[in-house]
Amino acid sequence: MVKENDLSEKLEWRINFPDGKSKVLVPESGILDKTWVGLKGLLGRFILMVLRFLENAWNLGVAEPKKVIHGVKVGLTLFLVSLFYYMRPLYDGLGGNAMWAIMTVVVVFESNVGATLYKCVNRVIGTFLAGSLALGVQWIACKSGETFEPMLVGVSVFFFASAATFSRFIPSVKTHFDYGTMIFILTFSLVSVSGYRADEVFQLGHQRLSTIAIGTSLCIVISILIYPIWSGTELHLLIFRNLGKLADSLEGCVTEYFEEDKTVPESEKDDSKRIQGYKCVLNCKGTEESMAKLATWEPGHDRFNFRHPWKQYLKVGATMRNCAYCVEALNSSVNSKNQAPEHLKKHLRDACMALSSCYSDVLKELALTIENTTKSSKIDFLIGEMNFAVQELEDALKSVPNSVTEPAELSTLEAPINEANREPVTKTTLPLIVEFLPLATLVSLLIEIAARVKEIANAVDQLADLAKFKLTMDEKPNQKKTTKEPTSDAQDDETTKIPQNLR
Amino acid sequence: MVKENDLSEKLEWRINFPDGKSKVLVPESGILDKTWVGLKGLLGRFILMVLRFLENAWNLGVAEPKKVIHGVKVGLTLFLVSLFYYMRPLYDGLGGNAMWAIMTVVVVFESNVGATLYKCVNRVIGTFLAGSLALGVQWIACKSGETFEPMLVGVSVFFFASAATFSRFIPSVKTHFDYGTMIFILTFSLVSVSGYRADEVFQLGHQRLSTIAIGTSLCIVISILIYPIWSGTELHLLIFRNLGKLADSLEGCVTEYFEEDKTVPESEKDDSKRIQGYKCVLNCKGTEESMAKLATWEPGHDRFNFRHPWKQYLKVGATMRNCAYCVEALNSSVNSKNQAPEHLKKHLRDACMALSSCYSDVLKELALTIENTTKSSKIDFLIGEMNFAVQELEDALKSVPNSVTEPAELSTLEAPINEANREPVTKTTLPLIVEFLPLATLVSLLIEIAARVKEIANAVDQLADLAKFKLTMDEKPNQKKTTKEPTSDAQDDETTKIPQNLR
Repeated sequence: MVKENDLSEKLEWRINFPDGKSKVLVPESGILDKTWVGLKGLLGRFILMVLRFLENAWNLGVAEPKKVIHGVKVGLTLFLVSLFYYMRPLYDGLGGNAMWAIMTVVVVFESNVGATLYKCVNRVIGTFLAGSLALGVQWIACKSGETFEPMLVGVSVFFFASAATFSRFIPSVKTHFDYGTMIFILTFSLVSVSGYRADEVFQLGHQRLSTIAIGTSLCIVISILIYPIWSGTELHLLIFRNLGKLADSLEGCVTEYFEEDKTVPESEKDDSKRIQGYKCVLNCKGTEESMAKLATWEPGHDRFNFRHPWKQYLKVGATMRNCAYCVEALNSSVNSKNQAPEHLKKHLRDACMALSSCYSDVLKELALTIENTTKSSKIDFLIGEMNFAVQELEDALKSVPNSVTEPAELSTLEAPINEANREPVTKTTLPLIVEFLPLATLVSLLIEIAARVKEIANAVDQLADLAKFKLTMDEKPNQKKTTKEPTSDAQDDETTKIPQNLR
Repeated sequence: MVKENDLSEKLEWRINFPDGKSKVLVPESGILDKTWVGLKGLLGRFILMVLRFLENAWNLGVAEPKKVIHGVKVGLTLFLVSLFYYMRPLYDGLGGNAMWAIMTVVVVFESNVGATLYKCVNRVIGTFLAGSLALGVQWIACKSGETFEPMLVGVSVFFFASAATFSRFIPSVKTHFDYGTMIFILTFSLVSVSGYRADEVFQLGHQRLSTIAIGTSLCIVISILIYPIWSGTELHLLIFRNLGKLADSLEGCVTEYFEEDKTVPESEKDDSKRIQGYKCVLNCKGTEESMAKLATWEPGHDRFNFRHPWKQYLKVGATMRNCAYCVEALNSSVNSKNQAPEHLKKHLRDACMALSSCYSDVLKELALTIENTTKSSKIDFLIGEMNFAVQELEDALKSVPNSVTEPAELSTLEAPINEANREPVTKTTLPLIVEFLPLATLVSLLIEIAARVKEIANAVDQLADLAKFKLTMDEKPNQKKTTKEPTSDAQDDETTKIPQNLR
């Protein structure tokens, strides 16, 4: 069939002349057509790809306008720095080296102030140190005669570049001076090597330093003055938003498990999204660390001064992740196929729901503490309530057998006929353990989470102390002493923290 | 006392002359001494700091010689590239622009081949595109007259720099062309701006491209020829080592819980270190992702071809992390203060230990599969054994009440005197639930881990398929079909996979 079709297609282009001869036309336009169609397809796909890319870009721009603003800031800085090139007096002063200013702007301007400052400071220090060292080496090389000069310069480049490259792996250098070390290698090599040739080492070094100074200062000014994005503020936002997400996850998880009617499918999608919030907490380690590193470079801004304890945010983050691990396990036990029997669930339902809502309250209060940078007056009360809820759950747990033996005993009354069961008592308790297993896990994880939530509370409390958070308005000063102490040793003594009215 | 001492010290420097006059000597050498002591202290601290830094560097170098080798490689490449500067014919060809080659080497040479290639390709493409575009803009600007020329160039710099900077936030660009986009902005600005001034745009563009070509090719050659560090190989090592660590953690955790005699304190330190292995798995997400990204840039090497499915390693990593979350919860339940009573622990001990050693076997076999890039012939048998062990544990769980009512019944026999307990039966089961809680969590998590280990096995199996791992030597070809099928649907049907001899 296929062959026949091919044949008929071929024959279409054969022309029979009246004199009996026939001529086969080369299907020129056919190839052209096919190429055209192919090209059109390719072009169409390319245009589609470009359109999709632009759509993505547009969506990103709409969702996060600060990224567009960053782009405009970089463009503006480059435009300003290129003015140096156009203006005759400045150009005469710096000559072709004005391009170092452009290069500095492109390389140094980052989306947040901390990163820009880190790179600026590193660039200036690295350039200065490397320039001085290179001049020293140059001076020694000059004294050592014409044969030794290139050799000495070459060996020094090899040695210093190797050592500096290796030093980039040392943790202390890597954290604070990684970029500076790279700039050190760059400047040292450039000044050493071109010094041998250009005989204008001093001028090169001086020009490089001054153009870099122009570039860096322009970057710093624009990045701070026009719509600044502070690494510290971003970290601050991230941490308290994650606390909120963790609270929602925790509460949503337990609610989903004990929910009786699942008749509202519209809200379920939102619910499952809300429950997955803990995953953000699990995946934020890297972001938090780099933000905290950069935040230490930033001057005082918003409500944060220069020496704001950014590292403590990492500790809060770590305790939150620790809690999120438990929520992950909780979530998987909620979604497991083996579900506890309804009467067991019903028995523990209220205690579990109360406890999870206590966790949520504590976490949301901690989020508020961080958000408003004020010490909370309610947190100790909430932690007390949480401890009380844990106690309630444990009590409910102790009363489990009493309330569930009743339906089990019915089966005992029916069972004794069976010969294999010598002891009907054991048979009534037998299904209990296995059935109780998923619920037991949930309860046990819920109780474990109490300790982890307290760890978060401790970390936030330390943060409040280190950053000197103020008390909230509604709190009286004499309450300060009494409310602060129990939180700081929250893990040591649980019973003391149950509020008087709840004991 | 202190005041008197001060006084006597002051008086020591007062000289009484024979004519009755006295002169107080300014204690010059005292200040000098103090300054000297202070300086010595400062110097001592500085030297100590430097020594400690050098010690750290030395230790790092001894622990990871490949980092030293990388430093030497960079030094060597810079030395070679600086030869271009010294050699007259090459210098005449490239002029002062030879420094671009040095810059390229410093900026592009990374510690692994993938990162170096990524940067090289990005740099060349970015430079070429930006150079062409800048020349086009320059040409249009030239035609538009002297007044419009700088304006047009300035506006184009502003527009393209802003757009390119913003595009760096778009995920697809960020993943593959982040560095290239930066180089695009750099080259475009440099060529545009200096083109207006120098009237040698073509030469600048050509020289920049050729020097970058020299730098990048030298980097690539040296990074591949001399002791290459492949990102892919590192990822490969990381994944199978983490599998081993996870296996050790899991087994160590359960062993620690059920261990009867804790009389060997020396080995305990090793043990606790071994148990903490899962934390490596939890913290590796970022490393894995960046390694997998860079590995796609690498040509075929070791046992991996160019199209090796590196992304699948990320999936294996994700399933491992998923399992590690459970191990974390397991570990915390092992370390919780509430311990189950001994007779309960004894009852479940063997089943739990057997299951955990099954997990360890499966994970270690999977690690071997990845390490040797060969399909395992034993894995299906091991998974079958694991399923069987899960079944055994569930059976042991069902028989819990039978074996523990005996000691409980003793108390029942003593209890009836108590008036409050109308029903002695409920009293025997009452402490059971609460006491059983920590053990129940452990058991439940252990059973949950089975599903997660199977997920890892599936991911590794997919990897083996995608990367076309060969079968191990000892396996006969006709076994291939029968062993492969159960693994691929390991999660669907558990009972079919219990080996015949164990049913």
